[in-house]
Amino acid sequence: MTAARPVFYVSDGTGITAETIGHSLLTQFTGTRFATDRIPFVDTVDKARSVAARIRAAGEAAGLRPVIVSSCVDAELIQALGESGALVLDVFAPYIAPMEQELGLKRMPQVGQAHGIVDFDTYHRRINAMNYALTHDDGMRLDYAEADLILVGVSRAGKTPTCVYLALHYGIRAANYPLTDDDLDSDRLPAKLQAYRRKLFGLTIDPERLQQIRQERRPNSRYSQLETCRREVAQAEAMFQVERIPVLSTTHASIEEIASRVLESLGINREMF
Amino acid sequence: MTAARPVFYVSDGTGITAETIGHSLLTQFTGTRFATDRIPFVDTVDKARSVAARIRAAGEAAGLRPVIVSSCVDAELIQALGESGALVLDVFAPYIAPMEQELGLKRMPQVGQAHGIVDFDTYHRRINAMNYALTHDDGMRLDYAEADLILVGVSRAGKTPTCVYLALHYGIRAANYPLTDDDLDSDRLPAKLQAYRRKLFGLTIDPERLQQIRQERRPNSRYSQLETCRREVAQAEAMFQVERIPVLSTTHASIEEIASRVLESLGINREMF
Repeated sequence: MTAARPVFYVSDGTGITAETIGHSLLTQFTGTRFATDRIPFVDTVDKARSVAARIRAAGEAAGLRPVIVSSCVDAELIQALGESGALVLDVFAPYIAPMEQELGLKRMPQVGQAHGIVDFDTYHRRINAMNYALTHDDGMRLDYAEADLILVGVSRAGKTPTCVYLALHYGIRAANYPLTDDDLDSDRLPAKLQAYRRKLFGLTIDPERLQQIRQERRPNSRYSQLETCRREVAQAEAMFQVERIPVLSTTHASIEEIASRVLESLGINREMF
Repeated sequence: MTAARPVFYVSDGTGITAETIGHSLLTQFTGTRFATDRIPFVDTVDKARSVAARIRAAGEAAGLRPVIVSSCVDAELIQALGESGALVLDVFAPYIAPMEQELGLKRMPQVGQAHGIVDFDTYHRRINAMNYALTHDDGMRLDYAEADLILVGVSRAGKTPTCVYLALHYGIRAANYPLTDDDLDSDRLPAKLQAYRRKLFGLTIDPERLQQIRQERRPNSRYSQLETCRREVAQAEAMFQVERIPVLSTTHASIEEIASRVLESLGINREMF
């Protein structure tokens, strides 16, 4: 087996931008093994030089030229990273010139700005949304007047992680309501949700997959029997259809995709944090 | 006041990669007003054409040429987006040729792969980490044997959002322990944390900022008095110092930055979801 190609996400900030684009790029080269590492907060030439030495050594150990995906803004830092002998992919460089030309002004290179220091309002909005998601998780509180949206579905259909993701990344007040046996035995919307119809979005899931998830949580219980999962999912889907609640299957979707599709369906447009 | 320049993050998948890099790019052009919009799941030429028409209209309405930041992989889609007349910045194009040359193979364009379909193990790891964070939030459960790390600090120092972020994006089992009055009156580590010293990381915060956050939560309480905040923060910081717990101030940091710095300090290297 050949060695994995060393890939480093290097940044003057958190490295999230570099890792996001780098990861997307690597997924397009399936069949190649990569060993990835994130090196954040490289904000001086001295640090960049020492990182370059470390990357050079990793390349020598692997017997393969390393790749650096860099989101460092300062040209001096990028030059210092070049001393590693790695292939350096600069996340911003290709776009600066066309943007400067289009806007008719020079960019202001500000180190580590994208995910760095934040103003109080932004922080506050995220934290408040997060508190909202946690206090309105799993039907704990049913006062949905302030909710931006309410996810509805059977237990373990993916509601909680989606709500938390929406809160963290979009500052959205997302509540979630688990359909209980009582709710499912009727094919109508639970009375307590009727006032919030336009905020509702249904999550469903393949019963076999649901069974697998529940089995991990409460092994060999009635809750995790395939028959229970099949019945609950069928009842929930019938209700979504009768009540015309938009619905998405989470079976093969990532949390990011579920979140994106919910926002698109409900027509909510918020900038991402 | 001039109109805001329309910027569209267009993607065949969730649009997270396009928005992440686009947002980072825009932060370098301070002083320009942008109106941003995310258009995900543009995965056919027909959809791309209709998106192009919408973007052309937005540019005409604003009287400014729009900017598209595209993470569409398929060249036909990108060409269709070009019909909008916008400046199209292609998130992957500049890096494909150098990567292909370096690796000696052609990329496999797979639509919407980065944040799309996921395997069961990946989903499971994230969900389990998330459950862990929620059940070990705020000192609710003190069985830390399985924790990857434990954040320690006074109430409202930023522990919960950081734990949830670490779970969601790194699959890390992050617990958090709030320092109570009893804990703070001693300057030593609480007994229940002593077995987990190497997993501990302290969060601190400027007392004025803490007061502002607590005031929102429980207005005009003893809890939110500046004097209370000052005392608690001073006691916590003294304890971190005596016990040599690594510590970070969250006052001006984003959740992403806190998370990155915690991982760096504890030497935890995980690929990001």
